[in-house]
Amino acid sequence: MTTISAEQTLQLDAWWRAANYLSVGQIYLRDNALLREPLRAEHIKPRLLGHFGTVPGLNLVYAHANRAIAERDLSALYIAGPGHGGPGMVANAWLDGTYSELFPDITTDAAGITKLFRQFSTPGGIPSHAAPETPGSIHEGGELGYSLSHAYGAAFDNPDLTVFCVIGDGEAETGPLATAWHGNKFLNPVTDGTVLPILHLNGWKIANPTVLARIPEEELRDLMRGNGYEPIMVEFEASDESASVHERFAEVVDLALDRIAEIRDAARSGETARPRWPMIVLRSPKGWTGPKEVGGLPVEGTWRAHQVPLPDARKPEQLAQLEEWMHSYRPNELFSGDGVPASLITSLAPEGERRMSATPVANGGLLREDLDLPDFRDFAVAVERPGGSDSSATTVLGDYLAEVIRRNPRSFRLFGPDETASNKLAPPVYEATEKQWTAEFGPLDEHLQRAGRVMEVLSEHQCQGWLEGYLLTGRHGMFASYEAFVHIVDSMFNQHAKWLEASANIPWREPISSLNYLLSSHVWQQDHNGFTHQDPGFLDVVVNKSADVVRVYLPFDANTLLSTYAHCLQSKGYVNVVVAGKHPSPQWLSATEAADHCRRGLGVFEWAGNADSGEKPDVVLAAAGDVPTVEVIAAAEILREEATDLRVRVVNVVDLMRMTSESEHPHGLSDDDFDAIFTADSPVIFAFHGYPWLIHRLAYRRRVHPHLHVRGYKERGTTTTPFDMLMLNDLDRFQLAVDALDRIPGAADTYARLRADLVERRTAARQYTRDHGEDDPAIAQWRFSEAR
Amino acid sequence: MTTISAEQTLQLDAWWRAANYLSVGQIYLRDNALLREPLRAEHIKPRLLGHFGTVPGLNLVYAHANRAIAERDLSALYIAGPGHGGPGMVANAWLDGTYSELFPDITTDAAGITKLFRQFSTPGGIPSHAAPETPGSIHEGGELGYSLSHAYGAAFDNPDLTVFCVIGDGEAETGPLATAWHGNKFLNPVTDGTVLPILHLNGWKIANPTVLARIPEEELRDLMRGNGYEPIMVEFEASDESASVHERFAEVVDLALDRIAEIRDAARSGETARPRWPMIVLRSPKGWTGPKEVGGLPVEGTWRAHQVPLPDARKPEQLAQLEEWMHSYRPNELFSGDGVPASLITSLAPEGERRMSATPVANGGLLREDLDLPDFRDFAVAVERPGGSDSSATTVLGDYLAEVIRRNPRSFRLFGPDETASNKLAPPVYEATEKQWTAEFGPLDEHLQRAGRVMEVLSEHQCQGWLEGYLLTGRHGMFASYEAFVHIVDSMFNQHAKWLEASANIPWREPISSLNYLLSSHVWQQDHNGFTHQDPGFLDVVVNKSADVVRVYLPFDANTLLSTYAHCLQSKGYVNVVVAGKHPSPQWLSATEAADHCRRGLGVFEWAGNADSGEKPDVVLAAAGDVPTVEVIAAAEILREEATDLRVRVVNVVDLMRMTSESEHPHGLSDDDFDAIFTADSPVIFAFHGYPWLIHRLAYRRRVHPHLHVRGYKERGTTTTPFDMLMLNDLDRFQLAVDALDRIPGAADTYARLRADLVERRTAARQYTRDHGEDDPAIAQWRFSEAR
Repeated sequence: MTTISAEQTLQLDAWWRAANYLSVGQIYLRDNALLREPLRAEHIKPRLLGHFGTVPGLNLVYAHANRAIAERDLSALYIAGPGHGGPGMVANAWLDGTYSELFPDITTDAAGITKLFRQFSTPGGIPSHAAPETPGSIHEGGELGYSLSHAYGAAFDNPDLTVFCVIGDGEAETGPLATAWHGNKFLNPVTDGTVLPILHLNGWKIANPTVLARIPEEELRDLMRGNGYEPIMVEFEASDESASVHERFAEVVDLALDRIAEIRDAARSGETARPRWPMIVLRSPKGWTGPKEVGGLPVEGTWRAHQVPLPDARKPEQLAQLEEWMHSYRPNELFSGDGVPASLITSLAPEGERRMSATPVANGGLLREDLDLPDFRDFAVAVERPGGSDSSATTVLGDYLAEVIRRNPRSFRLFGPDETASNKLAPPVYEATEKQWTAEFGPLDEHLQRAGRVMEVLSEHQCQGWLEGYLLTGRHGMFASYEAFVHIVDSMFNQHAKWLEASANIPWREPISSLNYLLSSHVWQQDHNGFTHQDPGFLDVVVNKSADVVRVYLPFDANTLLSTYAHCLQSKGYVNVVVAGKHPSPQWLSATEAADHCRRGLGVFEWAGNADSGEKPDVVLAAAGDVPTVEVIAAAEILREEATDLRVRVVNVVDLMRMTSESEHPHGLSDDDFDAIFTADSPVIFAFHGYPWLIHRLAYRRRVHPHLHVRGYKERGTTTTPFDMLMLNDLDRFQLAVDALDRIPGAADTYARLRADLVERRTAARQYTRDHGEDDPAIAQWRFSEAR
Repeated sequence: MTTISAEQTLQLDAWWRAANYLSVGQIYLRDNALLREPLRAEHIKPRLLGHFGTVPGLNLVYAHANRAIAERDLSALYIAGPGHGGPGMVANAWLDGTYSELFPDITTDAAGITKLFRQFSTPGGIPSHAAPETPGSIHEGGELGYSLSHAYGAAFDNPDLTVFCVIGDGEAETGPLATAWHGNKFLNPVTDGTVLPILHLNGWKIANPTVLARIPEEELRDLMRGNGYEPIMVEFEASDESASVHERFAEVVDLALDRIAEIRDAARSGETARPRWPMIVLRSPKGWTGPKEVGGLPVEGTWRAHQVPLPDARKPEQLAQLEEWMHSYRPNELFSGDGVPASLITSLAPEGERRMSATPVANGGLLREDLDLPDFRDFAVAVERPGGSDSSATTVLGDYLAEVIRRNPRSFRLFGPDETASNKLAPPVYEATEKQWTAEFGPLDEHLQRAGRVMEVLSEHQCQGWLEGYLLTGRHGMFASYEAFVHIVDSMFNQHAKWLEASANIPWREPISSLNYLLSSHVWQQDHNGFTHQDPGFLDVVVNKSADVVRVYLPFDANTLLSTYAHCLQSKGYVNVVVAGKHPSPQWLSATEAADHCRRGLGVFEWAGNADSGEKPDVVLAAAGDVPTVEVIAAAEILREEATDLRVRVVNVVDLMRMTSESEHPHGLSDDDFDAIFTADSPVIFAFHGYPWLIHRLAYRRRVHPHLHVRGYKERGTTTTPFDMLMLNDLDRFQLAVDALDRIPGAADTYARLRADLVERRTAARQYTRDHGEDDPAIAQWRFSEAR
């Protein structure tokens, strides 16, 4: 059974040869691009970089996807998991015309080919992986493991989309990829698109065979069936005739796409059983079509083909091999004398936006529409006086998010590892939506539906990968995580931030929605879980990335959280990290005050201190974070009431980047504005949510820095009460007041009795906790009383 | 077919009831521990913390493992993946007597039970998870996903060990766990022990069903077969009679252990085919044996049983339910009037170190023996004059490691994600050993054997998890990774560091070998891979952890790397992070000088500067890291030769923690010693391997800090040449020399022409790279010429 015509076979083979030729050329040539003269050493690049091994397989899939897209009028996206195959992706984009449209300098002719070759992996040129610079890519090929999560993220809410997701067998060994197969238990065939995974077994990594290529066929089949797929196996060998390769692979692709169409039709006609989606296992030699042997050692079909099969191509023997290799693609048949690709090739490409390199899905900013956002003030809690009432900030945010979901039923999703309820965004969000789930249902399930806006799976990698795929294809979303465990995706964050940094410099990439984190169940709320759940260090990872793309916010009550999140959900091109507690805690600012404070990013709480506006204080008590804010206000109250001669100013920082110089970050405050708040030389006691050194790192250039004393989490913790945790880390109100007395010249003497008393109250608080197993109610239920 | 006697059934059931009773008691009771009087509100703890849901399943497995261990004289280790089941682990350790041996205060009687209950999840008490404080545990239950990797790590080189590894179905959704199943393609049944995975499907996470509990039985079976196991399925329902539960589960355990024994025997008799190891799928209700309904809502068998099934146990209705629940275990049968467990129970426990809570395997420091280490000087490269020759530091280290492997053939392993060769530790290490691999072999394989000291799999999670398991059970090892991608295991590092921190305070835990990282293919060596492979920020994550457990080293040539690693391989209780390049680069110190420099941790390179010893320099040029060291020496050479009136001191820091105050870290230098090297007020230009802010963070208390100017990686990168990367980040020799001139008072004027010339040389270097696609050979092949 052959599904393609002889003409199509020729088309496919011509495309494949052309893409392979252009890939090899990118790795090796800086001149004589079309081999119109004998190859000489000076035509070879001085540094040979790139990865050929995976490329021919990627190109084969690309060619065949083209055929199917045109025949079936598919909307398709191509994800190259073996991202080292960058030259292949570039070659395909050039062949279908997209490359020259986006980079007019790289023309579709011989001159363009030469530039295409020269720019690859060269100073000032393009990276060797699939990257932001690669048309049609939403997936960086540098760090492996996320292709399949990205594919599912792209497919959600794109019901007509088909994602061809090629997964390398190296990548398949990573944890994130190993669990990403289960995306099919969350995908809804009615409202979402389809992912067609193509596991590309070429058998080798850099220096080792791959695990999945070295288990029996039946075991691999079981694994894929166990992951819920119906595998379609196909294997090619170096000796296969190309016509047979194309006929057999076309058949496999058609089989898969027919099955997908059946599943979609059935689901959209009411079938609700979870389908067994097809997937393809493609076995082909590593470095396929490349040199069989180099220097007497086998290369094609081995790990030696991973990068540059002929590493000494300027030397005569390898130069001759390279020339023979490149001529084996018969470039004279593929390109005209002017270097224009033959119509046999170009006729295989789909039209316009159907080209996978040109699909707006892969340049999500083109499709992105602003969210329809309610006014956060409509969800604000009433705050008649500071500290007069308690609320759970995240529950209030949950109300707001419920309305965001109602207004944007197809373009906003909330991702989280089984913690939406634990982080107290639910119940509110479940008044507007449900958790999407397409595995089996049971009688006791709550808030599970085949379609919904909340995506929960106990894998931070899946959550992050899905969200990235969703955002990169033009939609909006957020990831709510326990603060400590967001470190699980540190490296994914790094890669996404780098993607954003690079994308900002690519004119044709339109900005995508920001990736919004909500870190809750944070370090100061772990009385239940203890030491292992205490790590506020994600912020330290985040601020290493370019100031152009990272933002960090520490709202300290429900209204500042609302204001912050309303801002984040409108923003583009950033990673916004928001840390906020879930437990009921004092509310400080009205909606208007919160909006004002968040707009400034930091400010003085006049009502919490006793220094007149403009008067230089004896001490500045500053806080960033919800729990530190409470402690600082309580410490200021102690000083106001018991050290009445001292002038205390209370400052809160909600936008952490305000701490840094304006030369370092766009949100950085000028030194004069900074000094107006912190003074140039008063002692500053800074109570920080995270590791204290971060504040020093951000503020070390400030005039006041020599007088800055920071308290924060210093890795002291266990399973204990909230106030005991503060005391363990010297972040409690008593210690902060002692710190102030110790740093105001003369105050420790003047108020020696108060100081001794504070130390005593601290000891007593600790003892109370030990004796009663809970915090002294006088502290736990402390209420702020306004000064004036 | 029943494999156990009626007596054994009674024993098993008594143990199970007792363990469940003691688990519930830990969560709820502070008094009336044996229910010898009616339960009253004041007997209930004020804060109810803990996780009951998974506990009965964990206890069932523990009881049955006890029976099998005694019958078969097994050496066994128990890993509780659902680590929230901490109270169960504690209860089992108390029942087998270990708890009272290790904590003499917790006696094996009523008083001990009361203390056991009170200490649980209470201020000053023990954590709610399986933790370092838990006897028999090598696995923290806080962050999920690593149980199975830990289990394989423990099994390597422990040929007689059986690891019962219980995997929660929540944990099973994580990426690291999903790939950890493939550990069986690396385990050698002759030289290694056995892992018996027990997938514990209780169906629910905190708020959701679990994926693996909601796929058809056949699909799950395929998945486990696809992972290479033979699953044995067993399912229990709440209504099952306990005798039937024990009979059926004993049968399952015996089936698995018989099969394991067969496999071991066959392998040890020469069978080399990869075996299909058994695994158990245990389905049981969440919160099994607990309250069926609370407040009209179902609890047993639902997510509501995850934590505390009766959250308001001080209220009359729930108080009565709790009393009924606890009485359902029939405590009067289980404990004597004095609270001593009945002999029916205690007779089930194995003897002495066969008890899983008492096995020295779980307290690896007891088993650990120092490595037999060669003298690193025997492997040192000859350095006749500084900078006179080039070597690859990691290749030289590879020679040394080969000898370490030869001398320690059963207790040292090298773990890495397919990068041992890429990081250039190979070829040398393959002269001494091979890569261990038990999947299929092919004719082209190199250095793959069924037994070997190198473990390579493309999953940083597996590498880290295996190594942790290996170290925690008393052996030695290291993890060599690409620097950027070690961020993949940030969170695992955090958890291991916390384990070490906590363990150091537990008297009966003996110190284990340090976890040694080698980060190579680092940020300054990514001309091949580019921006995505550039991230030196792991150091920022590391230094957040307690100074008691983290060490960071930046050796700058082969001999300093040798000296550093020889030190690390002897150390205990730390995480040692070593960053070192792999490319041939200048060698600066002889073996003796290297040992001396590394012992001091930092020092002045007199030969690179021109300030006399004791003379105050006009500028200090300091470096940490191999590439920055080259640039600083080159910059100093420029200044020495072209600004002859200036006095330049060159400093190198190899032990990064020397930068911090002695009050902050044990390696911190006193301020006076620090000033003797850096001066108190000369300008310091510091060229740092990583993100520059880290140096400010470490050194902000130093007197010289206002004069400290740090250059480092500032997230500027692409695929380009090595020297262009330095220029992009202002870390090149020309810029460092300009920095010096700009910061020495008057120098920019005096040497205005030199300064302009340096700027010009920089521009020219950049242009050369653009024009030629490689660095100017005059720079790339620069050779240091000694001053005097």
